[in-house]
Amino acid sequence: MRWKLLPLFAALALQAETGADAWLRYAPVAAPPDLPAVVTVLGDSAVLRAAQQELIRGFRGMTGRILRAESVAPREGAIILECCDASLSGDAWRLVTEGGNIRIRGGNDRGVLYGVFALLRQTALAQPIAERMEAPRVATRWVNEWNNLDGTIERGYGGPSIFWDKEHVREDLSRVRAYGRLLASLGINGCSINNVNANPRILSAEFVPQIARIADAMRPWGVRVAIAVDFGSPKSAGGLDTFDPLDPTVVAWWKARFDDLYRAVPDLGGVVLKADSEGRVGPSTYGRTHADAANVAARALAPHRGLLFYRGFVYDHHMDWNNPKNDRARAAYDNFVPLDGKFDDNVIVQVKNGPIDFQVREPASPLFGALEKTKQAIELQITQEYFGQARHTVFLAPYWKDTLDFNVRGPVKSRVAGFVGVSNVGLDDNWTGNHLSQANLYAFGRLAWDPDLSAERISAEWTRLTFGSDPEVAQTVNEIQLSSWRTYENYTGPLGLQTLTDITGNHYSVNIEASERNGWGQWHRADAQGIGMDRTVARGTGYIGQYRPEVARVFESLATCPDDLLLFLHHVPYTYRLHSGATVIQQIYDSHYDGAARVAEYARRWKALATAVDEQRYREVLAQLEYQAGQAIVWRDAVTRYFAKMSGIADAKGRVGRYPGRIEAEAMQLAGYVTQDITPWEAASGGKAVTCASGVCTALWKFDGAAGWHTLNVQYFDMPGAVARYRVLVGAQVIDEWSASDRVPARRLDAGASARRVIAGVALRPGDEIRIEGVPEGADPAGLDYVEIQ
Amino acid sequence: MRWKLLPLFAALALQAETGADAWLRYAPVAAPPDLPAVVTVLGDSAVLRAAQQELIRGFRGMTGRILRAESVAPREGAIILECCDASLSGDAWRLVTEGGNIRIRGGNDRGVLYGVFALLRQTALAQPIAERMEAPRVATRWVNEWNNLDGTIERGYGGPSIFWDKEHVREDLSRVRAYGRLLASLGINGCSINNVNANPRILSAEFVPQIARIADAMRPWGVRVAIAVDFGSPKSAGGLDTFDPLDPTVVAWWKARFDDLYRAVPDLGGVVLKADSEGRVGPSTYGRTHADAANVAARALAPHRGLLFYRGFVYDHHMDWNNPKNDRARAAYDNFVPLDGKFDDNVIVQVKNGPIDFQVREPASPLFGALEKTKQAIELQITQEYFGQARHTVFLAPYWKDTLDFNVRGPVKSRVAGFVGVSNVGLDDNWTGNHLSQANLYAFGRLAWDPDLSAERISAEWTRLTFGSDPEVAQTVNEIQLSSWRTYENYTGPLGLQTLTDITGNHYSVNIEASERNGWGQWHRADAQGIGMDRTVARGTGYIGQYRPEVARVFESLATCPDDLLLFLHHVPYTYRLHSGATVIQQIYDSHYDGAARVAEYARRWKALATAVDEQRYREVLAQLEYQAGQAIVWRDAVTRYFAKMSGIADAKGRVGRYPGRIEAEAMQLAGYVTQDITPWEAASGGKAVTCASGVCTALWKFDGAAGWHTLNVQYFDMPGAVARYRVLVGAQVIDEWSASDRVPARRLDAGASARRVIAGVALRPGDEIRIEGVPEGADPAGLDYVEIQ
Repeated sequence: MRWKLLPLFAALALQAETGADAWLRYAPVAAPPDLPAVVTVLGDSAVLRAAQQELIRGFRGMTGRILRAESVAPREGAIILECCDASLSGDAWRLVTEGGNIRIRGGNDRGVLYGVFALLRQTALAQPIAERMEAPRVATRWVNEWNNLDGTIERGYGGPSIFWDKEHVREDLSRVRAYGRLLASLGINGCSINNVNANPRILSAEFVPQIARIADAMRPWGVRVAIAVDFGSPKSAGGLDTFDPLDPTVVAWWKARFDDLYRAVPDLGGVVLKADSEGRVGPSTYGRTHADAANVAARALAPHRGLLFYRGFVYDHHMDWNNPKNDRARAAYDNFVPLDGKFDDNVIVQVKNGPIDFQVREPASPLFGALEKTKQAIELQITQEYFGQARHTVFLAPYWKDTLDFNVRGPVKSRVAGFVGVSNVGLDDNWTGNHLSQANLYAFGRLAWDPDLSAERISAEWTRLTFGSDPEVAQTVNEIQLSSWRTYENYTGPLGLQTLTDITGNHYSVNIEASERNGWGQWHRADAQGIGMDRTVARGTGYIGQYRPEVARVFESLATCPDDLLLFLHHVPYTYRLHSGATVIQQIYDSHYDGAARVAEYARRWKALATAVDEQRYREVLAQLEYQAGQAIVWRDAVTRYFAKMSGIADAKGRVGRYPGRIEAEAMQLAGYVTQDITPWEAASGGKAVTCASGVCTALWKFDGAAGWHTLNVQYFDMPGAVARYRVLVGAQVIDEWSASDRVPARRLDAGASARRVIAGVALRPGDEIRIEGVPEGADPAGLDYVEIQ
Repeated sequence: MRWKLLPLFAALALQAETGADAWLRYAPVAAPPDLPAVVTVLGDSAVLRAAQQELIRGFRGMTGRILRAESVAPREGAIILECCDASLSGDAWRLVTEGGNIRIRGGNDRGVLYGVFALLRQTALAQPIAERMEAPRVATRWVNEWNNLDGTIERGYGGPSIFWDKEHVREDLSRVRAYGRLLASLGINGCSINNVNANPRILSAEFVPQIARIADAMRPWGVRVAIAVDFGSPKSAGGLDTFDPLDPTVVAWWKARFDDLYRAVPDLGGVVLKADSEGRVGPSTYGRTHADAANVAARALAPHRGLLFYRGFVYDHHMDWNNPKNDRARAAYDNFVPLDGKFDDNVIVQVKNGPIDFQVREPASPLFGALEKTKQAIELQITQEYFGQARHTVFLAPYWKDTLDFNVRGPVKSRVAGFVGVSNVGLDDNWTGNHLSQANLYAFGRLAWDPDLSAERISAEWTRLTFGSDPEVAQTVNEIQLSSWRTYENYTGPLGLQTLTDITGNHYSVNIEASERNGWGQWHRADAQGIGMDRTVARGTGYIGQYRPEVARVFESLATCPDDLLLFLHHVPYTYRLHSGATVIQQIYDSHYDGAARVAEYARRWKALATAVDEQRYREVLAQLEYQAGQAIVWRDAVTRYFAKMSGIADAKGRVGRYPGRIEAEAMQLAGYVTQDITPWEAASGGKAVTCASGVCTALWKFDGAAGWHTLNVQYFDMPGAVARYRVLVGAQVIDEWSASDRVPARRLDAGASARRVIAGVALRPGDEIRIEGVPEGADPAGLDYVEIQ
């Protein structure tokens, strides 16, 4: 017989810092508070027991002392956990000190748990234990996980699903329990566990017990499970001949399915529904409205107190690009404003922060200001789909704060009834694929609880909890995080251009024309004369008119429109001068060079923390930042060359198209390697790369620079699924070799596959023959773009 | 097609510090020296190429710069590696600076390699590059590896053999190459690759190409391979009807075997031979002498310039304990002195440092002073057979220095023609099973090169190379290392008692009577009145008479005999007063308490380095020291209780037999657990333990101490090969759980299995019920000895 090893003690084992504990590391604190020795829980529930255990675990880690777990009125000073305080609403909590006692009361048992996590957080942050009351701004604080039942995740960058594998719930749900704990520490109380592009099978009888297992794993952490459903299910899965929401057999079918589900999971949080969008079927098939669609499911949920989240992300992706009045940005408003007041009480319309789709900068969606009789939740994307997919560090709290504080008719944060974060954590030890990206989950949870918190405070909290109290570490990490959004915007899509990425492909790497001449509507309309989407009321799509007049006036006039949103709202010539005084084209050049330089600086600064950060996380973050620095140059060169060519206007600083020390692979002396055009041309330096079909291929050239110590930057292509090998020789001397085995989001040989190998400290002499040898494997042709010698 | 990843670049990958690189980490240095950019090798050999590559690797790691490898006279400043300088003997090297050049010349190509390693070491130690010449004291600097062909290692504590697996050479010899590099860095130039208790198959034809593969792997590092052979091989493997060394067919057989071997391995170093000892057959079978035995093999080796190492470790292990004149310590001298001058020129008699067998303290073997016409090598044991088997930290350099400097007829170091270290590294990442034990291999190599080096200097070098330049780390590690031998002696066998261990069993854990009443001769002759082996000339075995008169006089007289060797040389009453003023019995008590306290202090001091040492090595060393601290208490209690009982004399400080806060498991309220006697009785507290046959067994008691924060030390038994589980509850609260899965050297349930779980920060109140639950598995009965509450 065996006991299951409790996480309490597993955590005490001397483990490497893998990132698995995220901000709940409970590392020893320098000056532990003077605590009672007892933690008494009054009342009994799985959540209260979890709260008591967490308090013991946390203080054991931080102070080395094991609090006594008791459940009767204490005979000595104690931390008393008590439910429920009628003066507190729902998830709120109050901490009072009385004599030798610390008493944490909750409006419900989750409130107690949240109070416990707050006390632990204060201790870890070396804040004194003070009397306090906290209540969340909104009752609904959920995450969505776009996990497919086969274990893949749509837009997930931290490994496979923690919930599903091979069309079935995972046998081992220990990561689900651990995730529940992370969510609870932030006050997140709901989690939908399958992709919004839902597989109809989720509603079949075989999945009911599987969903129940996940709910059991989450329940002690006060996290209610929800599912996403497909609107066509009555027909596709239920065998009916219709899914018309007004058809009585359809109404009965939804009721029967949810009744079944609630028998197994009585506290199911509800359902997420995406309909009539991006190829999902919806009510339009039968001429019904989104309100009809939402209400049929909501009425089946209502007896169980379940919520129906209806996604506001509805638009036509077959719009005519040639019609200058067409505008995807208008879609959410146009679709939902006419239905205001038609939704049942337990329906929440879930609206993305901006009118398009999680682009690098968007104004707040005008829908937030327009719906008056409909509950809304703001949908924020924690997973970095258009933000470098966790291979680039981008801390999103400053962006989210801009949106939440934006005054649509009152600030957005005051107009929403819920927060929904698209999280998409995975089985990677560190959950998100990048240690620094964990900060986005933390920030989402903290803002969902209290949207008045500043990005600076959230970053400071997260950094200290995650990396400890070293002031140099804190300063470096905070400065990287807080500047990272601007930096990423600078090298991907400044001035409101949106993320200039491959929107019909990987949503990751640079592809400027991917936005254009198709029906997806993420148009920037760059041509030889000018650039930007005219969304004015006067001449353009009229999108600006969806805002209240005070906002619309500012946006409509070039004189007042903020530079950061200029090209999202206006079409202007390249020579147009910004408020900053720079021309649009020069600002495009400058911001890209600034952004790329900034990432290089991040990597340099991180290196200074070599002995201050634990080994594994130091190494992994360094590798991520160095990769990002290389990709930022790829972005910089692609965007600046593209617009230099398109506009015919040269960079005033003479950088674009001139790359001192760069040798194109196609200009080297090739043996085996063949030159090929890369599409789009801007994805490779010179528009070309060299690739190797088989054997060992060679590219060589003679160095003609000055004798001295040099750095070689080899820009090569790393294709996923196969491992090409490279080595570099100076004369007969091998100076470096590596394998291209990174987890990159490339789908073809373009900028998404572009990677950089930095070989420092090379002694070169004029006339040296430098040779790169590549050995392809399978789908990876050992491609080379260029070498830059510094 | 693939290249083999060169170690040069493998090392550059950002790897965790596993200990694999030992003292050759080449970590970045704060102030890199101003070096030429070129390393030119003049001449060509595998060793010279290795020297050049090592220089490039080392300076790349330390300075970030890749030196240019050239092989023609340089046109610019260069580090020039050149062989051979006729003014230098053999492995010597000279470094001169001339203009912009640094020139390293060797007496042979190994000398160049050693000069390169010296330059790298100086750089890593932040010493200036200065002109220098170094020559090793002796030409023969070898290691022996007692590796069996099945992959096990006799007295190996760092994992399985790097050479052999399942009666065959390993397919992957990368660890052999890496080991060759470690050895070369110390100037070690020979390595015998199989157990001295040799399998006769090693000489069969099928093994010739296998030995050749290992020799190929070692050759670039200037390490010659040797093998150990069994003297009975002509008969047991060769099919002859005799192995009489004077029989012409036997003579011819040896010659044929070695001729075969040298055809495949022309630079084979030679052969190690252990005969007529510990059950090995030998020349006595035919009435021949050790000289006859050595010479028959030596003559077959001579044409190939091979060396024959004949082990001086010959003794009778069936001696009559009742005869007070019998003495194993006399054996080497008695066996070999009569044969002085009878050995061929290429025979080296390999003599252990002391007359017994690597005990915790022995005087230098008198044989070193006695042989005048025979070449001798000193055999030192790097692997810690009687020194805690790498589970205890014991730095042996101070011990070795005592022996090397001991004046037998001139210091030992001036009387030997070679150094042989029994190394027994294994496949563990860190080679030795304990990071701190690597220092012993380092110290052996450094002393073999230059026996005048001090232990302090060797420790300082090793610590800085291994753990970096942090002064707090350096001070802590050096103080631990330099005091560790005395500490270990104090709790295992002070006053020359030898290691009071299970000499017929695991050679590891305490078993005081295992030495007595058998034929093995490691007797201490403790009885109710007194203790010690009388080896005087006047009354005892006469062993002291084997030393030159000046030494013998000091040893013979109680007035002058050093306390540290008292009981090795004399039998005295327990009440005998030492030079220190303490009685023998009180000194036994005091030294054991001091030793155990000292190890606890090591663990405390190491903990202060948590952020100064890299993560994995910090954790692994801490676990080792904490385990050692528990074992030191087991030793302390066993030895002090044993002698308190034997002598009937109480500890003047009242500690022995009184253990405040200790609760014996057999005194607890047991359910499932049954009490059993432990043999020897001193191996368990109270002589008893409790064990569990199946299911979950329970031992509980009521706490009757003062309320407060306490530490529970649970002394339990961890049997190898199976994993028992434990948990501890206070009332209904689980406060700790663990599995007994350590790699311990236990053969049965005794002190070797004894382990300690420390549970700190427990809030206890009088009347608390404390319960330990054990779940046995297979051969591990979840045994418990006691709990101590502090």
